[in-house]
Amino acid sequence: MTLPVVSIVGVSGSGKTTLLVKVVAELVKRGWRVNTLKHDAHGFSIDRKGKDSWKHKKAGASSVALSCPDKIAVIKDVKKEWPAERIIAGFLLDADVVITEGYKKAASPKIEVVRAKRSKKPVCAKDPLLLAFASDMLLPGHTPVYKLNDFRGIAALIEKKIIKKHKPASVTLIADNAAISLKPFIENLIRDGVSGMVKSLKGVRRAREIEIRIKNR
Amino acid sequence: MTLPVVSIVGVSGSGKTTLLVKVVAELVKRGWRVNTLKHDAHGFSIDRKGKDSWKHKKAGASSVALSCPDKIAVIKDVKKEWPAERIIAGFLLDADVVITEGYKKAASPKIEVVRAKRSKKPVCAKDPLLLAFASDMLLPGHTPVYKLNDFRGIAALIEKKIIKKHKPASVTLIADNAAISLKPFIENLIRDGVSGMVKSLKGVRRAREIEIRIKNR
Repeated sequence: MTLPVVSIVGVSGSGKTTLLVKVVAELVKRGWRVNTLKHDAHGFSIDRKGKDSWKHKKAGASSVALSCPDKIAVIKDVKKEWPAERIIAGFLLDADVVITEGYKKAASPKIEVVRAKRSKKPVCAKDPLLLAFASDMLLPGHTPVYKLNDFRGIAALIEKKIIKKHKPASVTLIADNAAISLKPFIENLIRDGVSGMVKSLKGVRRAREIEIRIKNR
Repeated sequence: MTLPVVSIVGVSGSGKTTLLVKVVAELVKRGWRVNTLKHDAHGFSIDRKGKDSWKHKKAGASSVALSCPDKIAVIKDVKKEWPAERIIAGFLLDADVVITEGYKKAASPKIEVVRAKRSKKPVCAKDPLLLAFASDMLLPGHTPVYKLNDFRGIAALIEKKIIKKHKPASVTLIADNAAISLKPFIENLIRDGVSGMVKSLKGVRRAREIEIRIKNR
């Protein structure tokens, strides 16, 4: 399984969010469906004090979900940080591309933002998955450098290197929070075997998407 | 598949959230892990203007996720409202019980809040899945009536009728957003068949949880 992911990385204050937002808007304008994932080592607050979801959480609920006709929100406690691939496989696969912010150690293609005022030394220069820099400096090495505000160029790069090269998998397999990569033959075997096993159940025959979760005790 | 769910229903302003919050706190105090799901026909706003997640969404991302070491948040656009069972099966199964707010038409056990000041007529009186009323009135019929603020009694009822009666499923099967119910024999067949098919893959053998998603094109 390969996920269509690219991560925007860089030191704090380098301008990751600013670039990400412009790149997302450009990709959406080009007709792609984009999901995003932001990593925040220091925690985040999303729920507003006094709102019902906040009250549910404060009462002790581990996960709180909200649903209305056009969207869903879920806030979920986890005992151990989930790897990006687990969150993507579980919640974000319904898009042409997932753009993550942070995750500089993840094994995914990356674009590093290097803003001279914040740091002159890239953190991912030696990462073989680094696709490009976005910077206001000249940088050594052979990695292409885009201008800091060249969101169109970077969107085009993502389109070419990630979106158009991605072959959507027909099977996603996750074992204990890790996404398992499958060779095409194995992928077909699992797809046909599992589909065959459940297709005669009521409500399954013509299903376009099948999801199975198994807990072994 | 049966989900350990109970829904707190009632007309607007009857005090559903107030009761739910107290019941959740009581169940947590009794040692249960509780997740919640609130239905809001009129939409909800959770994201704060100016926050990064808000910026990602505003740029056009369809789903936005945030991750930090102890929690995950996901805000997801959907084309059509997801049924409660789909949200529960996808995001909320890691608990002893899921308490939902709203969903008066769902096929799940219910507790209806009837507050005389708001409405004297229950809306789910004829629902065969109605477990009890929470009310400040005498109500006709044979359904037990708890006092409006008797959260301990209601928590005990949920413990007895939902949590302790629930047999955790070893297999959850979802086809095109609908949870498929499985007889025990079929459940075992799928669990053993699917586990057997993937267990020799690297990283799967000792997995306690396996998740497979199949897209048929």
